[in-house]
Amino acid sequence: MPDEVPIMRIGRNLLVTLQGDLEDATVEQIERVVTREVARTEATGMLIDISGLTLVDSFVARVIARLVGMVRLLGARTTVVGMQPAVAITLVELGVSLKHVHTALNAEQGMARLRGRQDERLD
Amino acid sequence: MPDEVPIMRIGRNLLVTLQGDLEDATVEQIERVVTREVARTEATGMLIDISGLTLVDSFVARVIARLVGMVRLLGARTTVVGMQPAVAITLVELGVSLKHVHTALNAEQGMARLRGRQDERLD
Repeated sequence: MPDEVPIMRIGRNLLVTLQGDLEDATVEQIERVVTREVARTEATGMLIDISGLTLVDSFVARVIARLVGMVRLLGARTTVVGMQPAVAITLVELGVSLKHVHTALNAEQGMARLRGRQDERLD
Repeated sequence: MPDEVPIMRIGRNLLVTLQGDLEDATVEQIERVVTREVARTEATGMLIDISGLTLVDSFVARVIARLVGMVRLLGARTTVVGMQPAVAITLVELGVSLKHVHTALNAEQGMARLRGRQDERLD
């Protein structure tokens, strides 16, 4: 994980790209940077792209769920995109459902989903 | 269960037909094939037709719930169709509610339900 957390602004949404390995230190940095950017840009939606993560296990799933929770407290909705089929199988086998986390296959579908929810309702 | 898992693409949706007996080995294959196809076709919805299963017990219900969970992580919604009346009775008697799994009587109604959910809101 590089020092910088890549965050791109697309309209009212932020696209956050998680890459490489997530370690405790970098997780804290990601949480700080992402929450600060949500507040600074007054974003209403966030996409977290996890396709660049080398490993997605129950630890990483918890990190994602935490991050989604933090962003939610700031009033923005998150969609997680870029999950590989094998990762989906592993997470369910580990009993990690990410039940409260919205998912979409890729950034395009995720963005459409955020737009749809912004148009209709904020849940 | 034949080696091939019958999957048909209908617009943005996939129709997966489960047939015969579900055994541990075939379940893993179904999970692999279905998740791969959802990702490959960028499907937003899936119908699982269980009318061809010889037996639907709590094991099969768990398999279906797991599969629905995996597909959800990939951003697609699932509706289970083709449940026989006797199966509905058995599942409730077994205490299996499939609470988080959407169901419809047949493929036509299931497809309408997927379309309705795609049009109205993505949650």
